[in-house]
Amino acid sequence: MNKTTKITVSIVGGSGYAGGELLRILSQHPRVSIKSVTSRQHQGKKVTLLHPNLRGFLDHLRFCSIDQLTKSDLLFLALPNLKAMNNLDQYLNLGQKIIDLSADFRLKDPDQYVKWYQIKHPRPQYLKKFICGLAEIHGPQIKKAQYVSCAGCEATCSILSFYPLLKEKIINDREIYIDAKIGSSAAGNQPALATHHPERSGSFRSYQPTGHRHTAEFLQQTQARNLYLSATAVEMVRGILITGQARLKNTDINERDLRKIYRNYYGNQPFIRIIKERQGLYRYPEPKIVAGTNFCDIGFAIQANSRRLVVIATIDNLVKGTAGQAVQAMNLMFNFPQTTALEFQGLHPI
Amino acid sequence: MNKTTKITVSIVGGSGYAGGELLRILSQHPRVSIKSVTSRQHQGKKVTLLHPNLRGFLDHLRFCSIDQLTKSDLLFLALPNLKAMNNLDQYLNLGQKIIDLSADFRLKDPDQYVKWYQIKHPRPQYLKKFICGLAEIHGPQIKKAQYVSCAGCEATCSILSFYPLLKEKIINDREIYIDAKIGSSAAGNQPALATHHPERSGSFRSYQPTGHRHTAEFLQQTQARNLYLSATAVEMVRGILITGQARLKNTDINERDLRKIYRNYYGNQPFIRIIKERQGLYRYPEPKIVAGTNFCDIGFAIQANSRRLVVIATIDNLVKGTAGQAVQAMNLMFNFPQTTALEFQGLHPI
Amino acid sequence: MNKTTKITVSIVGGSGYAGGELLRILSQHPRVSIKSVTSRQHQGKKVTLLHPNLRGFLDHLRFCSIDQLTKSDLLFLALPNLKAMNNLDQYLNLGQKIIDLSADFRLKDPDQYVKWYQIKHPRPQYLKKFICGLAEIHGPQIKKAQYVSCAGCEATCSILSFYPLLKEKIINDREIYIDAKIGSSAAGNQPALATHHPERSGSFRSYQPTGHRHTAEFLQQTQARNLYLSATAVEMVRGILITGQARLKNTDINERDLRKIYRNYYGNQPFIRIIKERQGLYRYPEPKIVAGTNFCDIGFAIQANSRRLVVIATIDNLVKGTAGQAVQAMNLMFNFPQTTALEFQGLHPI
Amino acid sequence: MNKTTKITVSIVGGSGYAGGELLRILSQHPRVSIKSVTSRQHQGKKVTLLHPNLRGFLDHLRFCSIDQLTKSDLLFLALPNLKAMNNLDQYLNLGQKIIDLSADFRLKDPDQYVKWYQIKHPRPQYLKKFICGLAEIHGPQIKKAQYVSCAGCEATCSILSFYPLLKEKIINDREIYIDAKIGSSAAGNQPALATHHPERSGSFRSYQPTGHRHTAEFLQQTQARNLYLSATAVEMVRGILITGQARLKNTDINERDLRKIYRNYYGNQPFIRIIKERQGLYRYPEPKIVAGTNFCDIGFAIQANSRRLVVIATIDNLVKGTAGQAVQAMNLMFNFPQTTALEFQGLHPI
Repeated sequence: MNKTTKITVSIVGGSGYAGGELLRILSQHPRVSIKSVTSRQHQGKKVTLLHPNLRGFLDHLRFCSIDQLTKSDLLFLALPNLKAMNNLDQYLNLGQKIIDLSADFRLKDPDQYVKWYQIKHPRPQYLKKFICGLAEIHGPQIKKAQYVSCAGCEATCSILSFYPLLKEKIINDREIYIDAKIGSSAAGNQPALATHHPERSGSFRSYQPTGHRHTAEFLQQTQARNLYLSATAVEMVRGILITGQARLKNTDINERDLRKIYRNYYGNQPFIRIIKERQGLYRYPEPKIVAGTNFCDIGFAIQANSRRLVVIATIDNLVKGTAGQAVQAMNLMFNFPQTTALEFQGLHPI
Repeated sequence: MNKTTKITVSIVGGSGYAGGELLRILSQHPRVSIKSVTSRQHQGKKVTLLHPNLRGFLDHLRFCSIDQLTKSDLLFLALPNLKAMNNLDQYLNLGQKIIDLSADFRLKDPDQYVKWYQIKHPRPQYLKKFICGLAEIHGPQIKKAQYVSCAGCEATCSILSFYPLLKEKIINDREIYIDAKIGSSAAGNQPALATHHPERSGSFRSYQPTGHRHTAEFLQQTQARNLYLSATAVEMVRGILITGQARLKNTDINERDLRKIYRNYYGNQPFIRIIKERQGLYRYPEPKIVAGTNFCDIGFAIQANSRRLVVIATIDNLVKGTAGQAVQAMNLMFNFPQTTALEFQGLHPI
Repeated sequence: MNKTTKITVSIVGGSGYAGGELLRILSQHPRVSIKSVTSRQHQGKKVTLLHPNLRGFLDHLRFCSIDQLTKSDLLFLALPNLKAMNNLDQYLNLGQKIIDLSADFRLKDPDQYVKWYQIKHPRPQYLKKFICGLAEIHGPQIKKAQYVSCAGCEATCSILSFYPLLKEKIINDREIYIDAKIGSSAAGNQPALATHHPERSGSFRSYQPTGHRHTAEFLQQTQARNLYLSATAVEMVRGILITGQARLKNTDINERDLRKIYRNYYGNQPFIRIIKERQGLYRYPEPKIVAGTNFCDIGFAIQANSRRLVVIATIDNLVKGTAGQAVQAMNLMFNFPQTTALEFQGLHPI
Repeated sequence: MNKTTKITVSIVGGSGYAGGELLRILSQHPRVSIKSVTSRQHQGKKVTLLHPNLRGFLDHLRFCSIDQLTKSDLLFLALPNLKAMNNLDQYLNLGQKIIDLSADFRLKDPDQYVKWYQIKHPRPQYLKKFICGLAEIHGPQIKKAQYVSCAGCEATCSILSFYPLLKEKIINDREIYIDAKIGSSAAGNQPALATHHPERSGSFRSYQPTGHRHTAEFLQQTQARNLYLSATAVEMVRGILITGQARLKNTDINERDLRKIYRNYYGNQPFIRIIKERQGLYRYPEPKIVAGTNFCDIGFAIQANSRRLVVIATIDNLVKGTAGQAVQAMNLMFNFPQTTALEFQGLHPI
């Protein structure tokens, strides 16, 4: 493929927040031609009706029905959980390659779907065919993949920040505590009392003190033996911040060593920044600084004279946690520069 | 009635925000016994399920159905618009006295319901029997009233701040511009896309640049000839702030005169504060300072060497704009001290 | 003292947020007469200039200098840390009894001041004379106390929620992880870049991932051997939410047992509510629901088939975490009903 | 200049919000090489210390002192008001061309500086040499300009939305009322009590009910005879929303006519969008939708059967209102495509 040819891309389920974010990013991708975007509910309407930030960019694009789709080089599935797995055959015919943004092909072991989603997976043979979309960990496989499944937003943040520590076996893998603070956009665009503004505004709500499904992804990816994950919905639209606590196996490990480990794993990764400053306000990662970007910012602190390690990490759940992760994977799959269309730096102040 | 006897009170439509606020205020009223609270949708459930701030105060109260109601000394109707007017007979039998919080009996001329609500009012003969609940203007009539209809929240703020100016005929009554900034709780507790947190959060949305229904109330109460009202939904849960602009008829009028006029009208009113400071941060009214209170704070500024007047006023839409106004009216109707159960001062910082 | 006599009260350091909150609460206390309020910086100004919510309540009160103070029945010290300890003699002469809201007399062991505050305490002999202000734990001593020292705001929330669990020895006291989410008012009323609105707004900032000073109070009060406390400044003005994680010693303990333990300790306490619902939005404690109130709401969850316990608790840092705690202690010290002037229920929606 | 040559650019006053936004935009401009950035206060520090969103983009850039500056092709002055005018000679030597972001050269008549800024302008002969930076109105002159002065943020929004209406003489130019809602970043990055988070958060503060300085710019640019501008600081970091009210001279003018007028003036302008929808949530302009972008979104409504017109417009004060306007002007001055480095679409949801 020469350097100016465009690939054709279609999106199934384009009216949600993940779909809108895909459209935003892809609309400025020089190697992508957006062919079709489906929406059952909004068929026939302009995409800018639901994604008002795209006015002036995608004015002529309208949602179509799935029946109007023809085969694309790449098909994005941006559907609610449990949809893609049940219509897989149809989608296999509509995309030379497929990137799924839902949870439907994230877990490799079908039993885990029984445990965490209370369903029997209808297409277990496909679970291993979908490569996890975390480019920092699975980059080489993604380059060759036909099917990619993006990691969950909370899982993305937790996995990327803990992966090097667990791989290097420097922390106790039975004693990992993560407190995740999550913005309202992670709940999708369907109104409900829980997200009604007077109820959700100013809220700090423990909506999943135990039993968060992303636990399964974390354990699968990191091979840790345990994760104690608590999730709190906080006053924020976009973003996830995790505050992780763990125990170093060895008291000799210092912050310089940690920096080196992260550099070894992520030194060449364009979307990981290690944030640990001695001055200024922004010494550790903060979600508002990465809003709109594809960054995963990671910081850490070791308590003086102890084996206690605190890990702080943040992403924009709709970008690195969903649509940006997907486009980054697409860039790898089609041999485009990895950062294409993902160059936004984020805003400050905001 | 001696000084410790309690009246019995019931609330029809107690699961909404107005109903919850009535319960909050009445639960600390020493002369009120809450008898029943109805909710079609939540019948049988504890009121604290919907009003979590009342845990520990009204733990044993449950929503009942309208059929379970028996006659009370006072019946509050806290229903969506167009409900009370259609079931009026039933309610007339359930309350010795009635206070309606909806728009159903606010306008005295049935034609205004055709114009602003596109309906033919089913009980026009009752329109004049309901006294407007603004104690600062209709106090003496409320004391003797059997039926009271509370003013709309935006109307309350605009009327109270402009009434003395129009009554004293010091401003041009054809050239009044009001820009109203309104919190999300004014839209009620039913989820919708417009109030879905990711959409409504951080929003400054011109939802009614023209055609706001409260215009009718303002004109009725003040006898002004015109009002140009624009309403913007802003990032706030509770509260209304109006910024009004008007033209003084006479260039001789100064801010001292205005202060005197307001004092003449409201000097004895416990819930009107004139806010106009030369120092400090809070020189003019601000909605967060009145949140939870029954105050209407009013400020003003005259542009130097001009006839231009700016009026700034604020209320908590759920208190002075709804439930607090109702309880204040109740206090007058039953000859209780006017401020009973409405003493909350508001919080700072907040 | 008969039932209507008033005590005289003065406040040293009345221009800050704790001082303002004391004034708000005391202004409606039927047994208290506010005598004087000092402020070095704002001497001579009206208290309502800094506390605008008190307009109409304390209009005639002005800040005075410390030199103008004469002896009161009770002196509140609402100063920044390290002030009260250095001027103690002066204050001892100005109050029959004293309640200190700072950190100056919280730790009983002078070495702890060296460790956590890097100072040699100037009056170590007074450390044990000050009784901790947590009424739920030290009620009987407070009743007889001459000097009371209020617990820190974060400490209050963590101690109250973990105290029964540690006292009953049902959790491992070496493995307690607390993630504290803290509003901006906890940083006081002095402007700084860290609290400049464009920087602080929307912020989720790990300002103390390790080394939080309130660790010392927690360990002192609960006798736990370790606490891993991380603090995040969040987008909120008032309030603290803690998400604690701990390990039960015994797999047999269920949530019913926990409820019983909390009931045993706090069943008669008017300001502790156990919040654990199966329905509705507010199943666990949330800071906005307690804003303005003196409640400490406590909830919990045990992960199915595990020894993992999550504890969730919240307070308003300026009320139960500071001024409300102080007034509750005052009520005990002077034999007033414990809840006097602390009856505010909180608002919903907010 | 061929299509890949870069111009050299320096920024005087790069530590503020305007400076940071310039750096953000310029760091992705393919035709610009950032040479130096000055800051008196932060000399020697990394620019990312103050602008954390630029980590990974401008890691090696440090603030220098003005004395270290050598001549650039273009000099941006991003200083507080009244600085550039007093050091003009120095700056004239440091930039082949100059773009000033302050108010120092906005008003053409030196008497207006006396009236609105209470100063005698030190270099009145330069006032007419600085061309106003609003490309939509002064594009041809900017292309040839050596010196450009960017319009104020509030003025930009008001002028762009009213200019065509006044130029076409369809509204009464003595009766224009504008209510401006303004985010906290417009006040700059210096901490003060007014912007202290607990005070400013949730604030709707009439900080300038009359006497707003941008009135002078509006009158100068539009030749209107009067403007009644009231400004309210609202709960927002970035953004300005204006709600304007005016009277049409002719009752025959309908919304279709207005659309045509705006199209005639701005149809070819890449950064003006006319927002007036019949469906969806975003029927009129909203500041959050333009955050981070260079758009000025303009909408309008005519009240049925009346001459009343409401105009609604929004910009990001730091982009179209400051740094984006400056870069757009730079693009014109150096014959780059007008939209270069200003392509960001904005985010939704946000």
